[in-house]
Amino acid sequence: MTKKRESDLINKNNCVMVHAMDIIGGKWRLPIIWKLYKNKTMRYNELKRSLSGITNIMLTRSLRNLEENGLVHRVEFSQNPPKVEYSLTDNCIKLVPALEVIYGWGHERLSKKDKDF
Amino acid sequence: MTKKRESDLINKNNCVMVHAMDIIGGKWRLPIIWKLYKNKTMRYNELKRSLSGITNIMLTRSLRNLEENGLVHRVEFSQNPPKVEYSLTDNCIKLVPALEVIYGWGHERLSKKDKDF
Repeated sequence: MTKKRESDLINKNNCVMVHAMDIIGGKWRLPIIWKLYKNKTMRYNELKRSLSGITNIMLTRSLRNLEENGLVHRVEFSQNPPKVEYSLTDNCIKLVPALEVIYGWGHERLSKKDKDF
Repeated sequence: MTKKRESDLINKNNCVMVHAMDIIGGKWRLPIIWKLYKNKTMRYNELKRSLSGITNIMLTRSLRNLEENGLVHRVEFSQNPPKVEYSLTDNCIKLVPALEVIYGWGHERLSKKDKDF
């Protein structure tokens, strides 16, 4: 094994989580995946309404990014007015068990916070 | 139930994932949690060495943020030179099953990418 290849492998082992966060990190990507998982397919405006606080720029950028990384399907129906639907790919559905854990954890923290007030 | 309270609840349901991502989103927080899970306790410099590409500012900020949110313990030993150790709190350990899934997913994606070259 060459020195270069060896150091690539060491780096790879170090950065699996960093690589994953490049794809699913950020404020909105997991919430978008979660909404699409719960609703199967959603139109752009449905997604926007369901994510309080998201701007068009953030939603468009996040969806494009998820699509480029093969996590989200974008299907465009040629009709007037145009209709676009988003859904999760099989690769993305593999992440759902992680999202279930994170959702449960977040829910518990928010409930405790409520009780503290 | 008042209108205000009702709308708070709806917002809360909408934003559990957003709330969770406020705490664990970002490029470095899950990788830091992952390293601390694997190594139990780590000193600042050990963490820095183990996360290739992280700067002091990013590591310090992420650790402070994780500590403020009760995910990471910071123990300072009064000795010279000073020694500080970081470890996960019980609340954070509840997230580990999610990290296992994300790690496996990231690892599979990286391995496939390697084969494509």
